[in-house]
Amino acid sequence: MPGAGRAAGVRRLRPQPSEEPPAQEEDQNLLLAAAYVSDAQYNRNVPFETSPRAIRLYYFYNHWTMQVAIYFFICVDLSLALFEEPALFPLPFLATSLAEVLCLTAFFGRLVHFAKVTPQMVFWKDTKNICIMVTIVLTLIDLIIYGSLEAVNVHSVRWSRALRPVFLINFPESRQIRRTFRSIRNTLPDILYVFLLFMFSVLIFSLMALKLFGDRGLKTVEGLPYFTNILDIVFELYVLVTTANSPDVMMPAYNFNWWYCLYFITYTIINTYIFMSVFLAVVYNNYRKHLKNEIRKLAYLKRHKMIEAFNILKVKVGTEFVVTEAQWRRLAKVVAPHISGPHLELLLRISDEGQKGHVDKVNFLRLADLLNIQVVTINIRRHPLEDWMPRVYRSSASLLVQRMVQHRIFVWVYDVIILINAIFIALDERNPFISYAEWLFLSLYIIEILLKLYTYEPRAYFGRRQFWNWFDTLIIIAALVATVANTTIQSARKYNSQQILDIVLILRILRLLRIIVSIQRFRVIVTTLINIGPTILTFGGLVLVVYYVFAIIGMEAFHGKVRFSDPNFTSPDALVCGNPALKDSAFARDRYCKNNFNDLASSFIVLMELTVVNHLLLLAGGFALVTHQAAKLYFIGFHIVVVILIVNIFIAFILEAFFVAYSLEKSEVETAIEKKIQELGVGIQEEEMQDGKLVDNVDAKDSGFSGDDGDNKRKDLKGLYFRIASKKYRTVDALLQQMFESEIAPEEEGPSLDEILNFSPGDLYPKNPNFENSA
Amino acid sequence: MPGAGRAAGVRRLRPQPSEEPPAQEEDQNLLLAAAYVSDAQYNRNVPFETSPRAIRLYYFYNHWTMQVAIYFFICVDLSLALFEEPALFPLPFLATSLAEVLCLTAFFGRLVHFAKVTPQMVFWKDTKNICIMVTIVLTLIDLIIYGSLEAVNVHSVRWSRALRPVFLINFPESRQIRRTFRSIRNTLPDILYVFLLFMFSVLIFSLMALKLFGDRGLKTVEGLPYFTNILDIVFELYVLVTTANSPDVMMPAYNFNWWYCLYFITYTIINTYIFMSVFLAVVYNNYRKHLKNEIRKLAYLKRHKMIEAFNILKVKVGTEFVVTEAQWRRLAKVVAPHISGPHLELLLRISDEGQKGHVDKVNFLRLADLLNIQVVTINIRRHPLEDWMPRVYRSSASLLVQRMVQHRIFVWVYDVIILINAIFIALDERNPFISYAEWLFLSLYIIEILLKLYTYEPRAYFGRRQFWNWFDTLIIIAALVATVANTTIQSARKYNSQQILDIVLILRILRLLRIIVSIQRFRVIVTTLINIGPTILTFGGLVLVVYYVFAIIGMEAFHGKVRFSDPNFTSPDALVCGNPALKDSAFARDRYCKNNFNDLASSFIVLMELTVVNHLLLLAGGFALVTHQAAKLYFIGFHIVVVILIVNIFIAFILEAFFVAYSLEKSEVETAIEKKIQELGVGIQEEEMQDGKLVDNVDAKDSGFSGDDGDNKRKDLKGLYFRIASKKYRTVDALLQQMFESEIAPEEEGPSLDEILNFSPGDLYPKNPNFENSA
Repeated sequence: MPGAGRAAGVRRLRPQPSEEPPAQEEDQNLLLAAAYVSDAQYNRNVPFETSPRAIRLYYFYNHWTMQVAIYFFICVDLSLALFEEPALFPLPFLATSLAEVLCLTAFFGRLVHFAKVTPQMVFWKDTKNICIMVTIVLTLIDLIIYGSLEAVNVHSVRWSRALRPVFLINFPESRQIRRTFRSIRNTLPDILYVFLLFMFSVLIFSLMALKLFGDRGLKTVEGLPYFTNILDIVFELYVLVTTANSPDVMMPAYNFNWWYCLYFITYTIINTYIFMSVFLAVVYNNYRKHLKNEIRKLAYLKRHKMIEAFNILKVKVGTEFVVTEAQWRRLAKVVAPHISGPHLELLLRISDEGQKGHVDKVNFLRLADLLNIQVVTINIRRHPLEDWMPRVYRSSASLLVQRMVQHRIFVWVYDVIILINAIFIALDERNPFISYAEWLFLSLYIIEILLKLYTYEPRAYFGRRQFWNWFDTLIIIAALVATVANTTIQSARKYNSQQILDIVLILRILRLLRIIVSIQRFRVIVTTLINIGPTILTFGGLVLVVYYVFAIIGMEAFHGKVRFSDPNFTSPDALVCGNPALKDSAFARDRYCKNNFNDLASSFIVLMELTVVNHLLLLAGGFALVTHQAAKLYFIGFHIVVVILIVNIFIAFILEAFFVAYSLEKSEVETAIEKKIQELGVGIQEEEMQDGKLVDNVDAKDSGFSGDDGDNKRKDLKGLYFRIASKKYRTVDALLQQMFESEIAPEEEGPSLDEILNFSPGDLYPKNPNFENSA
Repeated sequence: MPGAGRAAGVRRLRPQPSEEPPAQEEDQNLLLAAAYVSDAQYNRNVPFETSPRAIRLYYFYNHWTMQVAIYFFICVDLSLALFEEPALFPLPFLATSLAEVLCLTAFFGRLVHFAKVTPQMVFWKDTKNICIMVTIVLTLIDLIIYGSLEAVNVHSVRWSRALRPVFLINFPESRQIRRTFRSIRNTLPDILYVFLLFMFSVLIFSLMALKLFGDRGLKTVEGLPYFTNILDIVFELYVLVTTANSPDVMMPAYNFNWWYCLYFITYTIINTYIFMSVFLAVVYNNYRKHLKNEIRKLAYLKRHKMIEAFNILKVKVGTEFVVTEAQWRRLAKVVAPHISGPHLELLLRISDEGQKGHVDKVNFLRLADLLNIQVVTINIRRHPLEDWMPRVYRSSASLLVQRMVQHRIFVWVYDVIILINAIFIALDERNPFISYAEWLFLSLYIIEILLKLYTYEPRAYFGRRQFWNWFDTLIIIAALVATVANTTIQSARKYNSQQILDIVLILRILRLLRIIVSIQRFRVIVTTLINIGPTILTFGGLVLVVYYVFAIIGMEAFHGKVRFSDPNFTSPDALVCGNPALKDSAFARDRYCKNNFNDLASSFIVLMELTVVNHLLLLAGGFALVTHQAAKLYFIGFHIVVVILIVNIFIAFILEAFFVAYSLEKSEVETAIEKKIQELGVGIQEEEMQDGKLVDNVDAKDSGFSGDDGDNKRKDLKGLYFRIASKKYRTVDALLQQMFESEIAPEEEGPSLDEILNFSPGDLYPKNPNFENSA
């Protein structure tokens, strides 16, 4: 198997390195190797040509400016819906269509760039590229047709707008969103069977309802006939699964005869509780299976790329192939140009354990991981005040203040202050005493921050990962600025600026979040939630895509049918949302007129309400009244896609994130770095940082790090300290990948590229489950 | 460690068996060993005295009649709430209190019986027993107080009624329910912190809402002030988490200013989606951890009991201790008196592989598992018609019919008939043609069953595990009977009997379920759901307990406040549910009067509606109007207990069940039995059974099974076939236990009894998670 892997690795069109490569070629090789390592580091899996020109283009392709540019154009393209009819901010058709053509040109340019980088075969076999091209052509056709019809004043449908999210999904940068879509696609067959069975069950119950209640002459609260039409019944019962019309749909039958409630209870237990849980189980099980498969692929691909890089740079020393230290250093500098000298030296000492002047294969393969581990370089400095006026700062009064601030009671006192503040906020604000108290609290918080800055070294206090310190300070400063601004405006113009006041109020309340910092258990939960953050953003992208498509369809179908005009609902027209069909409907009665599809923003809010599910019936009913009963299909479709699929995947993701977080442990590479840091005596504990002991215990002078010679390390590294960035801040994917990689033997080369790309979840799933992993 | 285990195992007060025990003592020992084996088989963990009298009492204690009796009294006790004020069927206080005293006596008797069986120390240390005694005493006190106050016409509260579920939980028979309660208790600390953080978040948002919306002078749809009182806001926002008032609660602010919807969207994402998923994650993670711990305990306790049994019966043969075949056979007969001779012989041959006349320790320990595996003994018989009239049955016409019925097309034809039937049911029934068609369909179904009985051997067709055949036949026969009965009544009295008609309609529709049988994928899902059945019943018990307590409290608090009188809501009193406080309320407008706490059944239905969550606000608002705003706390409390805890545990359970079902495999013991069955040539495949090939291929004569001598097995076993009952029908617990047991080495004696009882989930949780088990 390793033999096959090698064969596949060599197969690429790459000039075989000759015995003594000239400088030019050596540079080329270094660039190529660096591209492989960089891809491994960021888990990029773009097959690229290995000709010098292609590599240079590939570097340019991956440059951050290009990525930002493409995302900018995607954003512009998507936000065009805000300016097109039905628009939130109307712009003429010519302006929007010109902007769209510009975006399309940018997308096409990006695609051409990609085509130059990747081999022809790969490019044309990739559905992503085909998708983008087809979408560009379709959009152009649609623009032309719509434009020419518009010119002769015929209004048609801009259907290609629903295709816009294709660009967001299909550019190689949106790996995460694509993966989630793939996960959904893979889940579909399993979901489908459960869904069919579920629909079968709904149909059976609908037939029963028709027979049991249809002939009774019952009426709903609105006075409509109850359960007489089979299609209505199916819809009502489907909605009952979402619980959105419970118990209303039951009441007429229940009022008629006590026993009929058993029918509805049975229905709810089977369809709401059992089937919905089964949906979650199926989605979760598939999500987990496919996630593992993808991660296995990623891990092997990474190994593969590192081996390629090694093969390019290797030289023979004695009996084994190695990479020289100089080469290694040049490579690392190309891959991570912003890495600090000391950090690079630290990594080299880990890779070249025995200081033999070269890095062997096993250690070389770890390079991508080593670069990925965030090592915080801490420059221990004395407090600036100590430098400026050492006497005063070290006087006993000053020391007392410092010890006081470091004491726990200081934290508790401020917690009590926050609680009192909360009570004051809840009280009536028009009382002048209370509005003065607000100034008192603000000054107390500012004093706290000043005291802390006096006690702790400011650059350490505002360190990169000191999230809560940043949060504290920013909130207080913003509150201060906003309050001052508000007071100024208020006294100057005798006029309360609405927006600024709102911001002041919100900032004032956000301050209360500081309580969380004081309670350790809360902090842990919040940290887990923050870790989930990045993937929640992926979900944001996914939801955006689905919402966008549904919003465009919704706008075409329901635009202008429901109008919100008068916020006080005084005119008769406002009471029926500008549509007589809504007279006496629950939709108008509950003042839902603003829930319409008249522009993109409103549509998104309606879709959000539909995601929450409650009152789905009311909304669907309203829009069915102003158009046609078939409109209900739109709402059911949305429910199936968003609630049954996407929300369940979201829950599955959070479950998985929690379980992985529970089984955290350090990776082998991290352990190696930590060991080396300890060996060199340049380690520092996070607790020391936080407790401020750092400044007290360490009395080292700031000193440079020469770092080029391996000797006298202790002295060299003094004053400069390293710490591995807390492992709490890690994503689920990274943790899973790390776990899987720790199970691949360091020497193993993995299966061949083709095998990797054809992995299926079935291969992976444990053939012999045991007690631990089965459940 | 095994040494410690032994020591603990011997420690019990048990007469050491002498070298040559007399017959009397040998019987005693056999009974004692059988008690251990039986406990191991059924996972009973009651420590019992080992004196002869205690053992006999213990047998009596475990007898099924005693168990049925105690459950009968528990049912009577619980159902007393139906007859007490506020009653569904009122009975005088004297009658219900006499019945209650009777039940209490029965419970006390059961407890005394248990005290005789178990050692004194154990009895008094067990909180279950103390709980029962305290509850009995409290109930008696309450009865006396209530009775004497009633005698002087003072009405007081029968508070002890809420304690009744204690009996259901605390008798040793309700292990499953107790385990779920334990699981909830263990989850509480973790849940609590998340809950506090969640409430903190709700409070922060409430303060913001008060500041943002409080002074705007906004009005709700009902014209009430919007978001002006902090307590109301907290309640509304808590309800928003349940989504029950979305988007109504948002509409006034949204109508006022577009941007305020961002506040509600943020709130929904954080509190509804993220926090509710975190609750599920925490509950699920704990559920899983504790489930595994409990199962590990059970597995070790079982091993422990089997070792006790072995030590009682062992004799020394050569160098090792064994149990003689005669003893083994006597023991098995005591433990499982109804086991068939051939089955016993099969088990012995598996246990005594080498036919040495005795069973060694490792094989003896498997006895409980062997007895637990359901081996279906099939007596291959020829079709009775073949015996009665072989000529006719084997004629070519008859064979053609049989082959036709066995053909797939036969199934498909009937699937089409069912579909046509479904369409006819959906059509209008008053059309005479359609009502005749119903008779046609009924006869078609009956013909199908008769044809199948003609083709397949009837006793095989109605085998114990042929669920779908039974289902089919029963539905058709019931439909036939009901239709005939209905027609008779209809023609005789010109009067449509409501109940019978309803039953006919439901049966007619249930017939459609047969479609599921035809589609393999559906069948698999349904089988999994059926497997979950038993544990769903446990959940039923749990929900019953919680509902009962809340219903009793609800009845005391809200009894008679809301009345349902007139099903057509024509009188003004009926329109406000008999309570003027409800005038113009949404509760009365939506005709919710029947959702009241006026008797146990109505209360349960209201609680069911609250479990579904939708319109929780409407219900809570209604009951708050007729009593006091504090009544809302009752509804919030119910939501926290039932929706956040119990429903999440239910979902966790279904998730777990599905994952275990996905990783099914045969146990080692099952494999041993199957191997032996194959060796002896008495195996039969399930598929053969179903496809009816059985009758065709096997041409064996019915013959007895002498079974006492080990020779000429092939001839002896002929005509009698064994099959392991399909592993599809197994519960999650059993599967998990089996998985765990396969990981204990057969020789291992496990930790000591004390150690087992003190297992904590932390010991078990993988210290070194790997890629497979971590996620």
